[in-house]
Amino acid sequence: MSRHIIRRTIERADSTLIDALGEAGTATVHEAMGRVGYAGPHLRPIQQDVRIAGSAVTVLSHPGDNIMIHAAVEVCEEGDILVVTNTAPSTHGMFGDLLATSLMARGVRGLVLDAGVRDTMDLRSMGFPVWSQHVSCQGTVKSTPGSVNVPVVLGGVTVQPGDVVCADDDGVVVVPRLDAGWAVQQSQARLAKEENMRGILESGELGVDVYGLRQKLIDMGVEYID
Amino acid sequence: MSRHIIRRTIERADSTLIDALGEAGTATVHEAMGRVGYAGPHLRPIQQDVRIAGSAVTVLSHPGDNIMIHAAVEVCEEGDILVVTNTAPSTHGMFGDLLATSLMARGVRGLVLDAGVRDTMDLRSMGFPVWSQHVSCQGTVKSTPGSVNVPVVLGGVTVQPGDVVCADDDGVVVVPRLDAGWAVQQSQARLAKEENMRGILESGELGVDVYGLRQKLIDMGVEYID
Amino acid sequence: MSRHIIRRTIERADSTLIDALGEAGTATVHEAMGRVGYAGPHLRPIQQDVRIAGSAVTVLSHPGDNIMIHAAVEVCEEGDILVVTNTAPSTHGMFGDLLATSLMARGVRGLVLDAGVRDTMDLRSMGFPVWSQHVSCQGTVKSTPGSVNVPVVLGGVTVQPGDVVCADDDGVVVVPRLDAGWAVQQSQARLAKEENMRGILESGELGVDVYGLRQKLIDMGVEYID
Amino acid sequence: MSRHIIRRTIERADSTLIDALGEAGTATVHEAMGRVGYAGPHLRPIQQDVRIAGSAVTVLSHPGDNIMIHAAVEVCEEGDILVVTNTAPSTHGMFGDLLATSLMARGVRGLVLDAGVRDTMDLRSMGFPVWSQHVSCQGTVKSTPGSVNVPVVLGGVTVQPGDVVCADDDGVVVVPRLDAGWAVQQSQARLAKEENMRGILESGELGVDVYGLRQKLIDMGVEYID
Amino acid sequence: MSRHIIRRTIERADSTLIDALGEAGTATVHEAMGRVGYAGPHLRPIQQDVRIAGSAVTVLSHPGDNIMIHAAVEVCEEGDILVVTNTAPSTHGMFGDLLATSLMARGVRGLVLDAGVRDTMDLRSMGFPVWSQHVSCQGTVKSTPGSVNVPVVLGGVTVQPGDVVCADDDGVVVVPRLDAGWAVQQSQARLAKEENMRGILESGELGVDVYGLRQKLIDMGVEYID
Amino acid sequence: MSRHIIRRTIERADSTLIDALGEAGTATVHEAMGRVGYAGPHLRPIQQDVRIAGSAVTVLSHPGDNIMIHAAVEVCEEGDILVVTNTAPSTHGMFGDLLATSLMARGVRGLVLDAGVRDTMDLRSMGFPVWSQHVSCQGTVKSTPGSVNVPVVLGGVTVQPGDVVCADDDGVVVVPRLDAGWAVQQSQARLAKEENMRGILESGELGVDVYGLRQKLIDMGVEYID
Repeated sequence: MSRHIIRRTIERADSTLIDALGEAGTATVHEAMGRVGYAGPHLRPIQQDVRIAGSAVTVLSHPGDNIMIHAAVEVCEEGDILVVTNTAPSTHGMFGDLLATSLMARGVRGLVLDAGVRDTMDLRSMGFPVWSQHVSCQGTVKSTPGSVNVPVVLGGVTVQPGDVVCADDDGVVVVPRLDAGWAVQQSQARLAKEENMRGILESGELGVDVYGLRQKLIDMGVEYID
Repeated sequence: MSRHIIRRTIERADSTLIDALGEAGTATVHEAMGRVGYAGPHLRPIQQDVRIAGSAVTVLSHPGDNIMIHAAVEVCEEGDILVVTNTAPSTHGMFGDLLATSLMARGVRGLVLDAGVRDTMDLRSMGFPVWSQHVSCQGTVKSTPGSVNVPVVLGGVTVQPGDVVCADDDGVVVVPRLDAGWAVQQSQARLAKEENMRGILESGELGVDVYGLRQKLIDMGVEYID
Repeated sequence: MSRHIIRRTIERADSTLIDALGEAGTATVHEAMGRVGYAGPHLRPIQQDVRIAGSAVTVLSHPGDNIMIHAAVEVCEEGDILVVTNTAPSTHGMFGDLLATSLMARGVRGLVLDAGVRDTMDLRSMGFPVWSQHVSCQGTVKSTPGSVNVPVVLGGVTVQPGDVVCADDDGVVVVPRLDAGWAVQQSQARLAKEENMRGILESGELGVDVYGLRQKLIDMGVEYID
Repeated sequence: MSRHIIRRTIERADSTLIDALGEAGTATVHEAMGRVGYAGPHLRPIQQDVRIAGSAVTVLSHPGDNIMIHAAVEVCEEGDILVVTNTAPSTHGMFGDLLATSLMARGVRGLVLDAGVRDTMDLRSMGFPVWSQHVSCQGTVKSTPGSVNVPVVLGGVTVQPGDVVCADDDGVVVVPRLDAGWAVQQSQARLAKEENMRGILESGELGVDVYGLRQKLIDMGVEYID
Repeated sequence: MSRHIIRRTIERADSTLIDALGEAGTATVHEAMGRVGYAGPHLRPIQQDVRIAGSAVTVLSHPGDNIMIHAAVEVCEEGDILVVTNTAPSTHGMFGDLLATSLMARGVRGLVLDAGVRDTMDLRSMGFPVWSQHVSCQGTVKSTPGSVNVPVVLGGVTVQPGDVVCADDDGVVVVPRLDAGWAVQQSQARLAKEENMRGILESGELGVDVYGLRQKLIDMGVEYID
Repeated sequence: MSRHIIRRTIERADSTLIDALGEAGTATVHEAMGRVGYAGPHLRPIQQDVRIAGSAVTVLSHPGDNIMIHAAVEVCEEGDILVVTNTAPSTHGMFGDLLATSLMARGVRGLVLDAGVRDTMDLRSMGFPVWSQHVSCQGTVKSTPGSVNVPVVLGGVTVQPGDVVCADDDGVVVVPRLDAGWAVQQSQARLAKEENMRGILESGELGVDVYGLRQKLIDMGVEYID
């Protein structure tokens, strides 16, 4: 078997599940799944107030080389999110407006990458959202092979091709494809609970009472003093 | 004595002094006090163009645990700023929109924390300002005791409960409660001086002349060359 | 010879070349020159969607000391960009609205500095753009000599006084003064090529085909799998 | 299914294969497998000149909490290496001499953890090797559940329980359990080749000739100048 | 009152208490006090296997300026440890072999500083131990005032002049002067308990049983699987 | 002109000057030249107590690619130090024992590189000293051109081929080739002065008196308090 592959076809989750996860947002989805799936605080959006979800098409690149991103474009479909990782830390601007033009022509919803992005003014005006570790105008070569649609490590989480990627201003969360339905249920239950709680808290009731934490604090030895 | 306490009542500075410090802004207050009180460049706002000051209610938490933030809510009053610190570095999103709802119901002006914050889109739309070290959707547990209203270290500065916290786009500055009056006087004197200087510099006069630095440069051995 | 100098007169590139580089933007200029000149991802703008170019007036300072910035003001001319570096890492807010007032009175287009900046709310409302490593309200002393218009190292690149500095949301790129004409030619050729490519990619043609990468991938041993 | 599990029994690679990988060392094994498996430069040894390999027993902990390390001890066997990861970055000293005493009593060969370690003077004198991200005397609580022998992400690599962990002064490399035999073959072939090359290079022959790089350099457009 | 002071006389803890804390080591003392007082993992020793404790003489310096260290020498006495902090992050080598010569002549036991140190080969051969954030040959100026024997923030902890500083390979821990006696008692109780536990664990008994954690794990919902 | 060159012949400083700088050590040379030339605290030795100087042969590489190091070997001569820099940050282990074998066969004295090094156990036992930013077993490709013996930026300093590189436990300092003679004179004068000062300080005299700092402190407004 070749060490470097491009897998053209992957399984994806149902699009209604994906969209439901996108609406729920990363904090809710992460919490609803039992506080797992968060990729880490180093991945930051270049835009504000954008919330998306999509199916992961994964790329594993050599640092400073974006040939595999070019190779990945034709594998992407409507509703996907491209997830680009590197075999070692990289600050290069591996992605810019031309690649975004190609991805938008295919209906790709956004990009998550653990290196740098460039043409950020253009990307924002095109409406193509990006989460990256760096912003950098530094360009790359196209010399070293990598893979498309293999399992990758993105920050603290493993991403399988076809997993659901959720991204908004709070970061990036990955939902395993087969857990998407369960994650939607859990997320919607949590949203309902939070909506209810919001009203209670607005009225001035205290979380320490509503959540029953006051006794727990005392049991842990915390002492109230005036 | 218990190692973990929640102090319910603290002394606060006079609210007119607090508001005057809020108007002056962090750069002026820090400079006016003799260049002290700055908490460090790692604390960044999640919003732009907001300037506040308030009385510090302090929290000392275990990393990845926000039970003490819940415990702190009822201790907060109109005009306070919640200051959350951790016993070790933490990237967790320890605070979100529900806690903000509770704090807003009590008139709290904002949050400063040396870990992560989540629900940032909601927090901005609610108008609840936050200064934090990270943005992260990663949630926390409620298992380990800590304290409320004890002295804490926030970046490079010690914060006593009731100290005045100033925060804006340039960061966070802490004014010891008993120095608030003096700090207002110094700040206002500085603002007046700067206002005057602004007009002089706009007219094209040089700071190197106005501040008398030209001779100092030469005395230090700096040589002018054409 | 003195160790610390202020060079009053420097050679600058032709202003039409500088303006053409400013319009091209950092990603294009950096790429057009053969992927050199990028100062690094640690230099970030305090504003969004501003793109400038200008002639470098360079400053070499002691950390936490801004006397040499004051000394540099009178050396600046219409169309310059002030480039401030430190002999060791510094987080201080070395520059604020008063210095910006002076520089704007002289027609200076912006500031690049490898330390911190303060008064960022004011600087944005004044329309004076800044690229810096930190935002910090912490003020400085005026006690230690340095130099103006000497060669400096800014991140990963050497800057000579009079070099052309390009800055936008993707970072900072330095063009050696004598290469400005060549860099404009290369940049404009690249822009034309990219404009053409944009249309091709919008139509759905694949970069992997247009750039002839498909054969290269196979030659490198990448295997396509379904 | 419970979210938190302790898996008592795992499959391990053949011990002669593990020992052969331990002798080869991380640089050789990583290179022999096609440059994969490296966990990253943030994991550093607290001792010098120690080279080991063993079967991974994995732990996933809450930051600042070492209860799951205690739980993992009885799952360890002769020849294992304990691999401790956290759900978020942690600097705590999660492991010290008492835990090492327990692990040594079971024949465990060493520890790899992505947080801090303490009692380092004792650990070195006991001969228990550790690779960690931090050294810190800061102790932990025992309050929050986690898992033992689940897949974990260690730096840039996924570790399955029973994978072979190689560690020496150059860092930590993970070999998937089922690839251990192949990795030994590749490593030994590489060692033989390198041994031969060492003699050639000692004699003064140039790698640029032996590896045939001179023509490649010229083909890539590199120009020799005197 | 002057903003910058040199306090010549400070209260110190009893020397037998200080020596007892030095023998206990940082991990024991930190743990015995209830897991407080640790200054953070960024402070690392330049030597190996040295364990000391002493009374803190504190210095607050401007970054890149060591005049206040020179000023602090005469304030130091037999058995002290010099604790140097900066008003902002600094990488400078603020301390070298000549200052160490002076301090050794006065019986000072070592140095803790949150910047850089130089002459490290000499310092090791002189037997003068140092804990610092950086090693750097970069020298400093002597131009800007600071203070000696004022409260300072060292990493995550406030140090009062005369507090007991403990330092070894695991880092630096600060014991408030008035708590020294209590800390010795707690530390010695802990050491005895650990000594006993060491024997138990060596015999193969499990901490999970001895500490009674097995039921706690199950109560927290952790599931054992084969 | 080609963008990528290998310059075979460079001018070097006189070997007696180089050796004299090597004996003086980085702290002395850096200080003697007026506190310039220090490359930064991120470059750390993999060995202890080694002090060298040599002529810089410079390499500019693409991250994760060491073909240009192979190309540089034949350009090296007796007494050189290889200085390897990258066009962007890199953690790769770009250099190991085989390259060291080649360099030792040519009389090269050591390596300075702003990326990672591997085979560190072997390199120490071979006696080939290295200063690097990382230690990493991660290997590189040989795919992308770079240059040999061009000016490079190493941390905060520009290095010209043939400059004198000094390295020891305190870091790396670069002396411009033409300043080598002057730097030796300055260094030897400083060493003599320090030797004299050492005796004075050992006798218990205070630096604050010998350097005349006591009056300066008072002039700066520092107040002595008992």
